[in-house]
Amino acid sequence: MSSAVPSVTANAGTHGTRRAPRPIRASAVAMRTRNPIRAIVDGLRVVPNPDKPMLSLALGDPTTFGNFKLHRSAVDAVKHKLDSYSANGYPPSIGTETARKSLAAKYSRPAAPLTDKDVIIASGVRLVIGLLPPRSRCSDALNLSIGVLCNEGQNILLPAPGFSLYETLASSKGIECRFYNLLPERSWEIDVAHLESLIDANTACILINNPSNPCGSVYSKSHLLEILHVAERHDLPIIADEIYADMVFKPHEFFPLATLTTTVPILSTGGLAKRYLVPGWRVGWVFVHDRDGRFDEASMRRTYCGSDIGAADLALLSWRTARLPLHTQVRRGLVNLSQLTLGANSLIQAAIPEILASPQSFYDETMHQLEANARVSSELLKGIPGIQPIFPQGAMYLMVEIKLDEFDGIKDDLDFVEKLVQEESVLCLPGKCFRCPRPFVRIVFTPPKDQLEVAYGRIREFCVRHHRSAASKKARTK
Amino acid sequence: MSSAVPSVTANAGTHGTRRAPRPIRASAVAMRTRNPIRAIVDGLRVVPNPDKPMLSLALGDPTTFGNFKLHRSAVDAVKHKLDSYSANGYPPSIGTETARKSLAAKYSRPAAPLTDKDVIIASGVRLVIGLLPPRSRCSDALNLSIGVLCNEGQNILLPAPGFSLYETLASSKGIECRFYNLLPERSWEIDVAHLESLIDANTACILINNPSNPCGSVYSKSHLLEILHVAERHDLPIIADEIYADMVFKPHEFFPLATLTTTVPILSTGGLAKRYLVPGWRVGWVFVHDRDGRFDEASMRRTYCGSDIGAADLALLSWRTARLPLHTQVRRGLVNLSQLTLGANSLIQAAIPEILASPQSFYDETMHQLEANARVSSELLKGIPGIQPIFPQGAMYLMVEIKLDEFDGIKDDLDFVEKLVQEESVLCLPGKCFRCPRPFVRIVFTPPKDQLEVAYGRIREFCVRHHRSAASKKARTK
Repeated sequence: MSSAVPSVTANAGTHGTRRAPRPIRASAVAMRTRNPIRAIVDGLRVVPNPDKPMLSLALGDPTTFGNFKLHRSAVDAVKHKLDSYSANGYPPSIGTETARKSLAAKYSRPAAPLTDKDVIIASGVRLVIGLLPPRSRCSDALNLSIGVLCNEGQNILLPAPGFSLYETLASSKGIECRFYNLLPERSWEIDVAHLESLIDANTACILINNPSNPCGSVYSKSHLLEILHVAERHDLPIIADEIYADMVFKPHEFFPLATLTTTVPILSTGGLAKRYLVPGWRVGWVFVHDRDGRFDEASMRRTYCGSDIGAADLALLSWRTARLPLHTQVRRGLVNLSQLTLGANSLIQAAIPEILASPQSFYDETMHQLEANARVSSELLKGIPGIQPIFPQGAMYLMVEIKLDEFDGIKDDLDFVEKLVQEESVLCLPGKCFRCPRPFVRIVFTPPKDQLEVAYGRIREFCVRHHRSAASKKARTK
Repeated sequence: MSSAVPSVTANAGTHGTRRAPRPIRASAVAMRTRNPIRAIVDGLRVVPNPDKPMLSLALGDPTTFGNFKLHRSAVDAVKHKLDSYSANGYPPSIGTETARKSLAAKYSRPAAPLTDKDVIIASGVRLVIGLLPPRSRCSDALNLSIGVLCNEGQNILLPAPGFSLYETLASSKGIECRFYNLLPERSWEIDVAHLESLIDANTACILINNPSNPCGSVYSKSHLLEILHVAERHDLPIIADEIYADMVFKPHEFFPLATLTTTVPILSTGGLAKRYLVPGWRVGWVFVHDRDGRFDEASMRRTYCGSDIGAADLALLSWRTARLPLHTQVRRGLVNLSQLTLGANSLIQAAIPEILASPQSFYDETMHQLEANARVSSELLKGIPGIQPIFPQGAMYLMVEIKLDEFDGIKDDLDFVEKLVQEESVLCLPGKCFRCPRPFVRIVFTPPKDQLEVAYGRIREFCVRHHRSAASKKARTK
């Protein structure tokens, strides 16, 4: 039989009648899936000063420098699962019941109660833009939430400045992105009137990121209530990206958005990445808050689904007792989509209860160090001529305004970033990467304090050197 | 300020002019993302015989019973990464360079060479349908491959019987699924004429699964060449789902599809799941084989992308030396899509070189056990009246034909499965779950041999009891 079938390889060049093959193109979706800032950063000239070691304030990954480490108990929990050989099989696409129960227990609040049935575990935390945009990653949790609420052709309201992944995810799905302004002079609160002006009949939802990347802002209760009011008035659900929940500096306080409303349906997303310092482990989640039953579809048959069976659940029939409520389109849609995008790694999922139980001292130490870094950053950056830091209230970022009119020969934030690398070997990301309409740069303050001090010293020298006052002085002394 | 802003919660019920809120629906994509067999299995009456312990031959997860275990060296490798605290940060969306290099080295063949630049690591192995369809999972590697080659409205050719995830992924993207027949009487070879008859101008690609789930078939070189010939004639790329590569029983041999052609572009998908016995770890990959440059787009600017920078790569500029070729739409599209769907867990990725280096003895032992189970299965199932097993050549499945006309009161494969559970507490999945046009059931033969023996004994009793010859005998003795 083998000899009867001509070899394709041997034939390829000699088959006289074969037409010239068409080039094979990528799908439209693949080609429209772009990180909007890749073009910006690909165009950046990142050529550091060879006499100065490179210092990066661009990498939104707290594990890079070794000063932020997950707690030993979490390491031990994963090792224990490895040794048990019991957590290598398939977990359900929405996550194991044990993991979902432990998340519900940890994050339930009297004003926004959660059970395991309101939790969908996703592969992939919400991921912070890293050193370079092509490295920026996505969140399954955000992907699920945007995917379930928005149709192609609808629009979604996103913060500017904001995390570029929102735009990547939405554009890939053919969803129009509309950007509402954040106000630096009000610690990056939302310009609520502007947000409301963007809403039309085609708006599918509002995305709020609190605490914020890149701004490091933490919204007050009253501001969150203002936002909820708009959503309620226009009958819109909210995706609350709360990956930095509880990463807040005193005296600020974090309010989970869902605790402030019973009427606005909220999908809140979070993950292990930041608080537990394991961004690469890729465990995220969506919490469904719908106390007013807005996701309900009276016309939907009330059916259930056995998605949450454990792979090792051989007492087959327990699936009938462990069902998820799928009586609403949105819950059902989330389960549907979870089948495309996977649950999280089985080992890590099995260790979630122990990871969530990391001692308070671990969390306190993380926050102590972050807060000290935030303070050092603000102290060393303020008073530098030509730039204006906006004091961070949480997360691990701050934005610094570049007062272009005070500098000689600095065109915009990109130009500032390029020259800073070239002269001082310090890298931060330009605000344009976050669709910031004004000239800002984002600084990540997770590097060790001594590195921050060196970096800020170099930024000071750079700014002094390029400041108009220096230029005019130099001109005068010539 | 707080007092000036009305509480949404407090106001919700009293705001007289507020219109009744619309129900919030899920997106069209979320609602069309369905596992086609959920309806089948949701309708199954799975009520076992209380006097017999349940035995499942339905779960495509080799780790379930404890008889198949990953090698200790792989466990130790992951522990080592945990202890190093060096693999908790973000890996690049396409996978780390180290992991991609080790995969390229392991899977490169003289006739289908690979470098790290041809490898995209995906979160999520290709996942086997489990006990119940809602638990079935997806593969990022397949999702990327289907997503990059097919547009909404185009069609893709899929095997029947075949793994249901293909249909879930394609339908979710609005891609039409056309099913080509496999021929049980030819050990599930493809009906090539039927396959070719399905091709039209709207066909985007052909998907081949070899070795196959649910069939356990392994294609000969000559058969693969026949398939390649069709693809070449119609100018179509192939997605080769080769997750069961090398899981082949003597004297059969596995040929990676890409080694048999230089002209047909192939995306081959694989993962750690099966060979390394860690399905829950979710590491898969896409290999790009395009020796004839068919993916090339002359009009594309030859640009590069720094996606493969390690998160810890602080010598920032190395990104310029570690670029991926993105001069073709398809390669660029894969990188684009990888930003949506995530790379794999950082810990596991860091351990990939060690996992791939699991000793040959580990692999031999796995195959020895699988092959013994396959033999036991064939021996104990053949000669059972009314059913006809198709001898498996690889993977961990076999299909058994149900000769309905030889049974009394068995309507179809679903009916067979329901009655078998009810009377004998043995579960297998009906062929309908795989769009098998004829009455078959799929058996997973990874349980320990003694459990298989008990299960097959019960199947024998069941078939004897329901066979026409038994019924007529009983009638005669009455």
